[in-house]
Amino acid sequence: MNVRSHIAVIRPLKEEDLVNGAAANHKQPTADQFKISLATVNSDADLEELYMRKRSELIAKERSLRFDAAKNASLTSDEQKANQIISRIRKAESDTKWDVAHEMHTFSGMPFYQAMDKMHSSALFNVIQKMPKGALLHCHMDATVDSRFLIARAAVTPGMHMRASQPLDSVASLREATIQFMVLPPDTTEVSSDNIYESSYTPLAWVPYTLARATFPYPHIWTPDGDDKVLSHLIPPPTAEVSQEEQQVLAFESYVQSLMTMAPTTSAEAVRNSKQAWAKFLTTFRVIHGLLGYEPNLKEHVKQMCRINARDGVRYVETRINFFLPYMVRANGQHDLTHREWVQIYDEAVTEVRQELRAEGIDFWDARIIYSTVRIIDNATLRLALEDCRALKKEFPHRIVGFDLVGHEDPGTPLKTYLPELLRFKREQSELGLEEIPFILHAGETLGDGNHTDENLFDALLLGTKRIGHGYSLSKHPLLMQLCKDHGILIEVCPISNEILGYTSNVAAHPCTTLLNNGVAVSLSNDDPCQFGNFGLSYDYFKLLVSSHQTQLSSLHVLVRQSIEFAQLDEQEKADALGKFEAEWAQFIEWIIKEHGDSD
Amino acid sequence: MNVRSHIAVIRPLKEEDLVNGAAANHKQPTADQFKISLATVNSDADLEELYMRKRSELIAKERSLRFDAAKNASLTSDEQKANQIISRIRKAESDTKWDVAHEMHTFSGMPFYQAMDKMHSSALFNVIQKMPKGALLHCHMDATVDSRFLIARAAVTPGMHMRASQPLDSVASLREATIQFMVLPPDTTEVSSDNIYESSYTPLAWVPYTLARATFPYPHIWTPDGDDKVLSHLIPPPTAEVSQEEQQVLAFESYVQSLMTMAPTTSAEAVRNSKQAWAKFLTTFRVIHGLLGYEPNLKEHVKQMCRINARDGVRYVETRINFFLPYMVRANGQHDLTHREWVQIYDEAVTEVRQELRAEGIDFWDARIIYSTVRIIDNATLRLALEDCRALKKEFPHRIVGFDLVGHEDPGTPLKTYLPELLRFKREQSELGLEEIPFILHAGETLGDGNHTDENLFDALLLGTKRIGHGYSLSKHPLLMQLCKDHGILIEVCPISNEILGYTSNVAAHPCTTLLNNGVAVSLSNDDPCQFGNFGLSYDYFKLLVSSHQTQLSSLHVLVRQSIEFAQLDEQEKADALGKFEAEWAQFIEWIIKEHGDSD
Repeated sequence: MNVRSHIAVIRPLKEEDLVNGAAANHKQPTADQFKISLATVNSDADLEELYMRKRSELIAKERSLRFDAAKNASLTSDEQKANQIISRIRKAESDTKWDVAHEMHTFSGMPFYQAMDKMHSSALFNVIQKMPKGALLHCHMDATVDSRFLIARAAVTPGMHMRASQPLDSVASLREATIQFMVLPPDTTEVSSDNIYESSYTPLAWVPYTLARATFPYPHIWTPDGDDKVLSHLIPPPTAEVSQEEQQVLAFESYVQSLMTMAPTTSAEAVRNSKQAWAKFLTTFRVIHGLLGYEPNLKEHVKQMCRINARDGVRYVETRINFFLPYMVRANGQHDLTHREWVQIYDEAVTEVRQELRAEGIDFWDARIIYSTVRIIDNATLRLALEDCRALKKEFPHRIVGFDLVGHEDPGTPLKTYLPELLRFKREQSELGLEEIPFILHAGETLGDGNHTDENLFDALLLGTKRIGHGYSLSKHPLLMQLCKDHGILIEVCPISNEILGYTSNVAAHPCTTLLNNGVAVSLSNDDPCQFGNFGLSYDYFKLLVSSHQTQLSSLHVLVRQSIEFAQLDEQEKADALGKFEAEWAQFIEWIIKEHGDSD
Repeated sequence: MNVRSHIAVIRPLKEEDLVNGAAANHKQPTADQFKISLATVNSDADLEELYMRKRSELIAKERSLRFDAAKNASLTSDEQKANQIISRIRKAESDTKWDVAHEMHTFSGMPFYQAMDKMHSSALFNVIQKMPKGALLHCHMDATVDSRFLIARAAVTPGMHMRASQPLDSVASLREATIQFMVLPPDTTEVSSDNIYESSYTPLAWVPYTLARATFPYPHIWTPDGDDKVLSHLIPPPTAEVSQEEQQVLAFESYVQSLMTMAPTTSAEAVRNSKQAWAKFLTTFRVIHGLLGYEPNLKEHVKQMCRINARDGVRYVETRINFFLPYMVRANGQHDLTHREWVQIYDEAVTEVRQELRAEGIDFWDARIIYSTVRIIDNATLRLALEDCRALKKEFPHRIVGFDLVGHEDPGTPLKTYLPELLRFKREQSELGLEEIPFILHAGETLGDGNHTDENLFDALLLGTKRIGHGYSLSKHPLLMQLCKDHGILIEVCPISNEILGYTSNVAAHPCTTLLNNGVAVSLSNDDPCQFGNFGLSYDYFKLLVSSHQTQLSSLHVLVRQSIEFAQLDEQEKADALGKFEAEWAQFIEWIIKEHGDSD
């Protein structure tokens, strides 16, 4: 739907439709206009009837602008029934589970970490978990898997080491220190015999991971009764009695996990704004890097990323991989695993996990790569990255499907600075007749209005981006929203990410509802579930559904379809994927009616 | 500017203006479209030049949709100079005062209470304080004055008493108890000899205010080193040594103040969402009621409201007064002061304070009343309120200028329920040829999207509201925004209020920028400065200016003009007011250039 059709919708609403003032030109309000509007009715009853008719028309006209208008106009009777069931469950849970009088702080759209416990016991959340979810279009590879997976791998990874910027000789030091992990080669001479938990420890000396894990001297601090309780429920307390040794390991691993997630703890200062959130967020990537950046872990990590999403109903993933560092650590501990090999490993992992998932009865379509580098480089380095991307695309045309620049956008280099190389890349691609590597750019992940980050939206669009990553500030730009609609550009919205990184107080306040109500194409993404805890897409879909009463189950159908339509699939793949999705959706509707339809 | 002119602006931007993809229809992207766009250039330099031209055009087209486009197209050279000066100060303070490396949490748009300290030492804030500010269109009478004013009055008010729902026999009890104040008549037999600070105190027994004030047994708790530091700087610590008795009184008054404000304290749980914020907010009104709801205080309060705003550059105020309770306490302690007398007192107060301010060299135009009742009543009670409003309008036509329903909108009765009486009121007004009492309705103060509160926006517009109070959720409604533009309806935006009451994480995330960028008429209001601390309009204007780089000094000129254009003034009054404002503005521009123009 474009602006022209909006006009056709708006215009029939005439001034006399409105009861007085609203219809009057504010510069010349006259008693005449006032009387005319009321003169058509003879009684209060007539006036009320006229009013209610106009009211319904106005609401219907507004809703006709929404992204789901066409879908909602053509529901099957089963889809209508399923919509009603879901709305009933949502209403019932809102009344009895969330909006209860004695719990002053709870409402269904409440902040993510506060809501997590209740979500897990929500019937609506359970339904959303079963929903087929199409494509996940926006996530960062090193942030896609539960941190416990990498922690478990670390314990059995030969040569895994750990170091700290200061001795971990007190509870306070655990938060103050910068921690790093790394696989060292078997013949390394870099390992120290220092005890990392004693004040005699030499800062930055490497110690064996297994030793640090087995001798952690703060076994009680992250238990539920401890000094530093993790406030989310990512780390469940042990269900049975555990030995002192087991508790030590649990506490150590909880500590390592706290370095990799944004879940609040009682000891760390509460995150109050996006600047502070990003400071913590960036440290998590450094910690993850040491555990993930290692050949055997990479393959397992890619597989786990596919599994965790597939089991939540996602069928296809586009992963942004940050290729800023030239090498990863090889299995033998050498630092020389090339980008070519990363993609090769990714490729093999996807092939293998697809087979594995097929055995589980899941038809996982594919996982592809958006080549990414970071917004801190100069144009010369960008040129090398673009050439690297082109070389990888040539060798793995089915894997490399786009190019992006990632990182904290506000302090990062604006797209405008990169125009020389980005435009040259486009021109060479065109001149040489190369297969297109589209830009799929992050833009507008900011609270700003007219600052450099916000202006990245103009550049992303002018550079021909296929989609926009985040586009948080897009709702402030009526013309740019119109361009997105006219030219078919989807916004990869990451509501829970934006909340945890301090852009919005909760999903209910997120501007994605403005995009949806304007008919801009949107798909929901989880961005960095390792850090946030929003694995799969159930959390983000749930949050949207309970935050927007205009959004129905059938609206989510449209969002999932859009995620597939805007995926980097060729036309045949897309048609096949949409067919598979619709079949899954029909089964899902059937299941809802069977499982929850009794009282309707 | 209406949708039709938007179209005229949007259409000239052709597909070939865009570098590839953005121009392609996503359903049929062809290599041809891709090549055409790049074929017009022969070199990277040409491409970059073309790009930069298109970029400037696109940004200019977007900005032409904004509310300030006409103004910014016709600036005098002095206004241009002043714009540059203000932008320079904003940039310099952002770089050196707010966005400094070692202060992880500070940025210029940061949350209000966290920012207050830095704001008070900001040169930009000082400029904004000097700015002429026209009309304050949205505030609630009992929330307009610094709580210290009422606290100071209470100490000298004969017959002022206090009671608590439980003995105030511990620090914890101070937060747990519900406190109430009231003037009792001289011959009252209701006063108890209990000590309110001992466990033997009978709950709800009245004790003399002066006694409670002089014997407060927790002199240290609200001092800067105390157990319960108030985190804002509303209560400055004493600058000199104080005696034990003085400290006792200071602590007592700080305690009373903490019952009347939303400023965070170290002891109270941090407010985390709007539901929790409203629970605390509503208690403040009950406390204020006992101190304000008394004949002599009312008059002084109205005067102080005019003074505090006038000294911040505001020249005209429309006050919502809640007439839900039928009587206020008369000077003799009797509960029989009628609504007629309230308005009479308000009327006298305004006349007197205008004279007083004139002596200060301030031409304060006027303060008028929007008759309000609360969203918890039934239709029968609403009918009485509307009749009461009509009677007051008849007697004080120059004071009563509108009707509204106030209170916490989310759990409140929807406007839809009140349609029978609201429509009847309109029809009778029309039939009897009475002077119009326009609706000026709160609507959409909610995070919801399609819930009852959000739907209040439809009803407010259909009922012919002249302005919308808050309209927080309006930015989610493209058609309703269009109606506001077409029919000249202004949104009374209260950004700091919305932040403190949990609707937005900070002003930078507030949807008012969406309204402004769409060309919807907006004016800034402070809503409840007693509770929030945002006295006058400087805080709200400052927050907007530092949160939106598109917003310039000249943009604030448009906002102030709009506040006057949409005030309930007659045409002659409006023309006079605009003339006075423009004269003040010209002086202000001159002052900026003289005071801050050296380095430009």
